[in-house]
Amino acid sequence: MKLRVVLFYLGIVLYACSQNMNAQNVIWTEIAPGVWKSVVGIPDKLDLFKTAGIKPAIQALSDMGSGKFPLPESDIAGEVYQGKTFLRFPLVKDEQIFGFGLNFKTVHQRGKILLLHVDHYGGTDNGRTHAPVPFYVSDRGYGVFINSSRYLTVYAGTAVRKESREAPEPLDRNTDKNWSAQPYSDAVEIMVPASGVEIYIFAGPTALDAVRRYNLYSGGGCLPPRWGLGFTQRVPTLFTSEQVEQEAKIFAEKGFPLDFIGLEPGWQSKSYPCTYEWDKTRFPDPGSFIKTMKSMGVRLNLWINPYISPVSPVYKNILPFTGSHTVWGGVVPDLTIPEAQGIILRQLDNDQVNFGISGYKIDECDGFDRWLWPDVAKFPSGNSAEQIRQTYGLLLQKMTTELYHQKNLRTYGLVRASNGGGSSFPYVIYNDYYSHEDFITALINSGFCGVLWTPELRGSKTSEEWLRRMQTVIFSPMAMINAWSDGTKPWSFPDVEKEVKKYALLRMQLIPYLYSEFAKYHFEGTPPFRGMNLEEGFNSGIKPELINTNLNENPYAEAVLKEIKDQYMTGENLLVAPLFTGQTSRIVVLPRGKWYDFYTGRYAGDGEVITVTPGLAEIPVFVKDGGIIPMMPPLLHSPAAGEKFDLEIRYYGSKPATYRLYDDDGETFDYEKGIYSWREIKVAPDKMGKPKGTISKAEKGKPDNIRTVSWKFMTGV
Amino acid sequence: MKLRVVLFYLGIVLYACSQNMNAQNVIWTEIAPGVWKSVVGIPDKLDLFKTAGIKPAIQALSDMGSGKFPLPESDIAGEVYQGKTFLRFPLVKDEQIFGFGLNFKTVHQRGKILLLHVDHYGGTDNGRTHAPVPFYVSDRGYGVFINSSRYLTVYAGTAVRKESREAPEPLDRNTDKNWSAQPYSDAVEIMVPASGVEIYIFAGPTALDAVRRYNLYSGGGCLPPRWGLGFTQRVPTLFTSEQVEQEAKIFAEKGFPLDFIGLEPGWQSKSYPCTYEWDKTRFPDPGSFIKTMKSMGVRLNLWINPYISPVSPVYKNILPFTGSHTVWGGVVPDLTIPEAQGIILRQLDNDQVNFGISGYKIDECDGFDRWLWPDVAKFPSGNSAEQIRQTYGLLLQKMTTELYHQKNLRTYGLVRASNGGGSSFPYVIYNDYYSHEDFITALINSGFCGVLWTPELRGSKTSEEWLRRMQTVIFSPMAMINAWSDGTKPWSFPDVEKEVKKYALLRMQLIPYLYSEFAKYHFEGTPPFRGMNLEEGFNSGIKPELINTNLNENPYAEAVLKEIKDQYMTGENLLVAPLFTGQTSRIVVLPRGKWYDFYTGRYAGDGEVITVTPGLAEIPVFVKDGGIIPMMPPLLHSPAAGEKFDLEIRYYGSKPATYRLYDDDGETFDYEKGIYSWREIKVAPDKMGKPKGTISKAEKGKPDNIRTVSWKFMTGV
Repeated sequence: MKLRVVLFYLGIVLYACSQNMNAQNVIWTEIAPGVWKSVVGIPDKLDLFKTAGIKPAIQALSDMGSGKFPLPESDIAGEVYQGKTFLRFPLVKDEQIFGFGLNFKTVHQRGKILLLHVDHYGGTDNGRTHAPVPFYVSDRGYGVFINSSRYLTVYAGTAVRKESREAPEPLDRNTDKNWSAQPYSDAVEIMVPASGVEIYIFAGPTALDAVRRYNLYSGGGCLPPRWGLGFTQRVPTLFTSEQVEQEAKIFAEKGFPLDFIGLEPGWQSKSYPCTYEWDKTRFPDPGSFIKTMKSMGVRLNLWINPYISPVSPVYKNILPFTGSHTVWGGVVPDLTIPEAQGIILRQLDNDQVNFGISGYKIDECDGFDRWLWPDVAKFPSGNSAEQIRQTYGLLLQKMTTELYHQKNLRTYGLVRASNGGGSSFPYVIYNDYYSHEDFITALINSGFCGVLWTPELRGSKTSEEWLRRMQTVIFSPMAMINAWSDGTKPWSFPDVEKEVKKYALLRMQLIPYLYSEFAKYHFEGTPPFRGMNLEEGFNSGIKPELINTNLNENPYAEAVLKEIKDQYMTGENLLVAPLFTGQTSRIVVLPRGKWYDFYTGRYAGDGEVITVTPGLAEIPVFVKDGGIIPMMPPLLHSPAAGEKFDLEIRYYGSKPATYRLYDDDGETFDYEKGIYSWREIKVAPDKMGKPKGTISKAEKGKPDNIRTVSWKFMTGV
Repeated sequence: MKLRVVLFYLGIVLYACSQNMNAQNVIWTEIAPGVWKSVVGIPDKLDLFKTAGIKPAIQALSDMGSGKFPLPESDIAGEVYQGKTFLRFPLVKDEQIFGFGLNFKTVHQRGKILLLHVDHYGGTDNGRTHAPVPFYVSDRGYGVFINSSRYLTVYAGTAVRKESREAPEPLDRNTDKNWSAQPYSDAVEIMVPASGVEIYIFAGPTALDAVRRYNLYSGGGCLPPRWGLGFTQRVPTLFTSEQVEQEAKIFAEKGFPLDFIGLEPGWQSKSYPCTYEWDKTRFPDPGSFIKTMKSMGVRLNLWINPYISPVSPVYKNILPFTGSHTVWGGVVPDLTIPEAQGIILRQLDNDQVNFGISGYKIDECDGFDRWLWPDVAKFPSGNSAEQIRQTYGLLLQKMTTELYHQKNLRTYGLVRASNGGGSSFPYVIYNDYYSHEDFITALINSGFCGVLWTPELRGSKTSEEWLRRMQTVIFSPMAMINAWSDGTKPWSFPDVEKEVKKYALLRMQLIPYLYSEFAKYHFEGTPPFRGMNLEEGFNSGIKPELINTNLNENPYAEAVLKEIKDQYMTGENLLVAPLFTGQTSRIVVLPRGKWYDFYTGRYAGDGEVITVTPGLAEIPVFVKDGGIIPMMPPLLHSPAAGEKFDLEIRYYGSKPATYRLYDDDGETFDYEKGIYSWREIKVAPDKMGKPKGTISKAEKGKPDNIRTVSWKFMTGV
């Protein structure tokens, strides 16, 4: 009875609140140049930005300048209704939007309905993915971020309001050929299952600017250590320290590059659930093993997942900070509690990081639902299972990133879950899905949402598939073979071994370019791998097409978008257009401006659709007019801090151009104290009309790792 | 500021509530014989049973007897936590559970994680389906129902609590071959996103008894009109009344049975959105058209969807009762408001039902998300978009059922969404998905959750596929060809026309049997189409098998259940084992007891797995020992009320047996006043040991449609 009385008043209070909060107008405050924030209702305490601990790069945002609020304010609505928050943002005709996290099959998101939910990707772009970042950008040049740790329901231009100014005219399906299954919708509508939320708008003027601002506000993109951009091999799970040393030797003997090796679950005394301690039978002396490997130029990365075994040394201490449910019999730490983080970090540090382990691969923090705690789990912090799921990847990245930061050492690892605000974490997402085509689409989408993604190479059925996959992993944030289950080596397909080696070495040659592009990610927010839709002069020419008119198979006569989702930019100058198993030719959509073949420097086209037939040995790569690509020799290991190398500068086309080459020690956070250099590479015609290159010197006292400079003018010389 | 004060108090009140409701124990009350109810927290006003307006069949439940509460009460937990309701029900080792709505790919549900959500089935058994009924039954003989109109998250034996008495021992994946990706879970856990819910337990002792009790508590299964069990053809969407009349004539000329024709969107003046009025160009005189058709023995069924066009005659009146969003430009009536129902019903009645339209096909009330209102829609009743979505199919069925009931006329229609409590509605679910195999699995699952499902026949690529699909639609609640888009006829594949006709006519012959089985659905709760797991003596022999040991393809070394999901019972005596395109033979798992071939009466096996190779012309059907199948001649139309027919009684095997034959007028609800008859058919050996059959007379004054009785002893005579 007493309860009923309480609930009666609760009802009244709730009703009052819903009335009070019925205000549709949203008030915006510019909290950083070009970044506006608004608060609707009373947001949850646990949100994405706070969890990620973002440190907005205010100076870099200032350098971009401010700008005017990019949307008509009166068309943005937010209100709390029945304990949930309803948001609405306008869309105009033909506007295209991108983002909403790491999708695998589609780039254009207008017309989608998504439930943004951290999960292992399951084969459908429905919002359940490793990084369901609640951020989208528009080709009209702005970005929107919802700072919520809840499962968000997104109607990305599908919901049609009765009161819309541009409500579509109803048509008669019986007789009107213009009838469409999807009438025009003028808004993105989002439901946040909480009674309030913070929302952010990022200015343009271009979509890329909005992405940059989002990344900079999140702290800037990560700058990996230089060795992180080298080649990495993950060895079979039960390998011993001897076998790992042997693996590194064979790589060296065969002349394959190798910067770090990943150890899979078998490095631990028990796994699934984890002990977080070395298995002493396979790794009797981890300290000297790590040293030996280091002396061979090879670092080590360790697999973990978050579920802790009863026989782990941390079990007793972590137990009070764990959730109500177990995963594989392991307890689940409530990482929203700092003590819980500390207990785990001390174990990793004392047992592994202190001995020189370079980083981690953090598995199974995403889901597939059954490999994660259920939504009915309770956690000692009082945060809901849903909120902890949405933020777990961020928490794991943040705590390990800080551990390395305290040691002034950079790390570069793998993680299976992330979310909004995570741009600065030096982690690359991977998964168990294995469609090569979709891996490339994911690479494109990673650039819209401040995460990194690797189309990792595991087994292949044929040497063709092996080489095609290898060609793309080279043009990605982490060039990796994951042989945890089958022990495949780069040379496992002898008929393509030579080509595989060529690309592994090309990866090494590209490190100066890739490292500079990552520096631009960090200092300027520009994603190093990104879709064509962020490239100036790109015309996707996209329009819905009715491909299947058989109503038995397509009962709503739905049109489909033929998207360009199989080519992407690697840094500012390289356009990569992979081929997949079975393909011998493909089309490439070149943006406006002249483009040149990366390998030969030959002219390829200008703002047109070309067809290429490159043969199995080659992945088509194009360089834009004036493209400068700084490269180094095909070393087997990335240069260590202070180790000098010879720079080769390639130049394509004929347009006068400038490239900014970044350098620092490649290993520490001293760059945060300004200990880095940007050197300007310029190419312009000399008096004879021939291209001539110059490179500025590193400022005095700033890093300078370049021994000699040579020039290669690739086009028409 | 004021708002913040209100919210502060709100916080305190919420906290107090959450503390008060933290009681884990659940109190049960037996509200009908063998049916227990409990209330956790404060349930939503809008629930499934109330929406369906169930009228529990108390007498029939009493006839089943009571029984003891089938679960250990202390192992059931329910509590409200942070505004959500968490429920837990125990499972024991090896217990199998079935149900959770209309799944298409799996029968066994233990080990699943589902979000019960009304939706068009999308190809994965994830809880999003046309009838995500929150009801499951256990092979230990009980059923559980969650009376909620919310999206429910179900962990059906996957979540593992730290404090479980039977918590699984953690194993070491590195070295232990017994490691399993899915450790043992001892409970079904369910999250209801509302601060309370009613829950129900249905007693056994068998799983079938629990299903029966659930159906009886829901009011008993539907009893279709007899003509509903005949054959039905849906004609192309733009057919005119003349073309429809012509269609019926051709069916008659060719000797194909036809009880009703379905008119698709083109009967309306405009569709998608709908006007709910006749198109006068295609149907200039609906009244006499309907009469003409009736005189040919053919009734009419009309397609509608719930979205109303601005030019509909009901638009102005319905507008105040519609939601905030439109679908295909049509307004969405809030059918939880009785006035809204009335406005629509008056139009259907005055314009169609009054003239003799026999029923409706109610499309697009399920989703695919983009063909439904969004979750951010608001409705004038104040009910949430989620709740209206979960109940819309029920509401549409209920209101139209009542319209016919008021006229004392039965209807039988099609609907694309239903939910818990809907057993008594005379509607069959269909969809746009088209996997023949999965259609059969859906038929099996329909029997666990109080809905009917038709594996409707649309186009086919080959005559083999056409005939194989035809053979199964005959053994389903609605024998239908849906030619709305392509105009296919039963005779469209001439090489199998003869066989198709044979099965269409077999359907007619089976009507006395099918009608009796539906009567048992209504009066006794026994589903007429159901899975083998509800059949006594059936041993599924199911156990998980590790089929794929390639860790690249199956990284968690997950075992799969090889389920029996392609054979089912039609009524109490027929076991149907379809073949699919490409198959020439299949295995059939026969339950304990002797089984006989339906066509020849030959002995087939006993509690064993047999292989059959029936040829394309035949679908394997088996009859249990003592099986009695009452049949009628292959009429082209079902007998009208009072029309007598000759009964042929087939008998199989040798066991003395009894069958209860149901009869009534076949068209009205007079059976509710007791105007029906059950006649007992008995077969027992005579003095010579030969089987001898008797049939009891209809009680005086009770319906008796049988002209003559003939006997066919199928086995060994």
